[in-house]
Amino acid sequence: VTLGTEWLVDARGCDAERLRDRGALEPLLQRIIQELDLHVVGAPAWHQFGGPGGLTALVLLTESHLALHTYPERRAATLNLYCCRPRAAFAWGDALRAALGAADVSVRVVDRGGP
Amino acid sequence: VTLGTEWLVDARGCDAERLRDRGALEPLLQRIIQELDLHVVGAPAWHQFGGPGGLTALVLLTESHLALHTYPERRAATLNLYCCRPRAAFAWGDALRAALGAADVSVRVVDRGGP
Repeated sequence: VTLGTEWLVDARGCDAERLRDRGALEPLLQRIIQELDLHVVGAPAWHQFGGPGGLTALVLLTESHLALHTYPERRAATLNLYCCRPRAAFAWGDALRAALGAADVSVRVVDRGGP
Repeated sequence: VTLGTEWLVDARGCDAERLRDRGALEPLLQRIIQELDLHVVGAPAWHQFGGPGGLTALVLLTESHLALHTYPERRAATLNLYCCRPRAAFAWGDALRAALGAADVSVRVVDRGGP
C-alpha cells in the first residue's frame, strides 16, 4: 500500500530576518504550490511566535499538506510536503537559497504507507 | 543543529467507516494532544473530501504540528507529529488500534535539522 510521498526539507544558514518575515515566506510557499501544481483548500494557517521566535504555516492541500516552520535564532527552517499523488521534482535547494538565503539544504524523501 | 523530532505514523487495516467519521477521529487527536501535553494554537483545520474520500486534519501547535490524513478506500491513515521539544513516548499502536481498528501500525522517527 503506497499512500504517497513526503519530502522532509531542512534548511540551515538562512537569513534570520527573512525567517521572521511572513512577506518573505509567503512567496516561497506560493512558488512551491504553483510549480508543483498543488491545490489549496481553505485559508492557510499562519502563526508568528512572540519575541525572537519564528513562524509556522500549515497549508491544507487536496494532495495532502505543506508545512513550514522557521527558527530565526538558529537560522534554520523546515518544510514538509506530503503529496498523495506523484509530482515532478522540485528544486528545493535553489528555491530555499533564493527565498531564505539558505547555505545548506537537505532533502529526505519518504514513502508513506509503511516501510 | 537539531530542530526537533518527527513521528511518521502509518496505520493499515483500519475500519473504513471510522476513517470517514470526524467524530471518531477527533478523540484520537485529543488523546495525542493530552497525553503528550501539546498546546494547540487557533482552530484545527478539518476537511472532508467528497464521495468515498477521507478526512484531513491539520493542528498548529506551539510545539510544531500534528497532521492526520485518512484513506477509507485503502483502510489506511497517516499521521505526522512534529515536535520541536522533547516528548515522552506515545503508544501509537495501542491508540490507533483502539481508535481506528488498525491491524498494523508503523512508526518512523526522524530527527529534523538535517541528516
